[in-house]
Amino acid sequence: MDAQDLVQHLPARAAFSAAKMTKLDCFRSDRLLVGLNCFEPGQGQKVHTHDGADKFYFVVSGKARFVLGERTVEARSGDLLLAPDGVPHGVERALERTVVLVAMAPAPTPQC
Amino acid sequence: MDAQDLVQHLPARAAFSAAKMTKLDCFRSDRLLVGLNCFEPGQGQKVHTHDGADKFYFVVSGKARFVLGERTVEARSGDLLLAPDGVPHGVERALERTVVLVAMAPAPTPQC
Repeated sequence: MDAQDLVQHLPARAAFSAAKMTKLDCFRSDRLLVGLNCFEPGQGQKVHTHDGADKFYFVVSGKARFVLGERTVEARSGDLLLAPDGVPHGVERALERTVVLVAMAPAPTPQC
Repeated sequence: MDAQDLVQHLPARAAFSAAKMTKLDCFRSDRLLVGLNCFEPGQGQKVHTHDGADKFYFVVSGKARFVLGERTVEARSGDLLLAPDGVPHGVERALERTVVLVAMAPAPTPQC
């Protein structure tokens, strides 16, 4: 699928790897990155910070333990987690196979 | 709930009106607007365009007929619809009670 297709069914785009969490782009411009992060149980993403950009995670399916600022948050399908400019964030550990929609403005270089 | 709460369970934030579709902000900075659009069956949103901004809809629940460029698209839970700079978009009609996550970069003034 072309990363710039205007209509995408995200559960069908999810792709997992036994080696580590995966990232794929759904849309990218200078202003906005939209992507998917996919986790097998036990996989995570190191806590990191984006300066000068606002980001959010939206849990499409599954369940994972996120880090957000100084909090640890167990989030599930339907949860929005906001990481505005400078707020440390990451995924400590997926508790199930988990698909997360990620958006970030402006888009990072290279991928977030 | 404070619109800038960093963790929000979106199905619990959805709010409907018999009069017309509703919009609420989940997050707003100059760079990024994140919001919810909530539709009762039969409600819609006029086709419109944002110049100089990229926007997307993600259908959290329900089903609706969207307009995207020159296409009409029946979208359901899990579907991402992208409306980059200048692409006309709107909701012709919700076919069920429908909750849509909306993000736009940069944020419009006033609300999209």
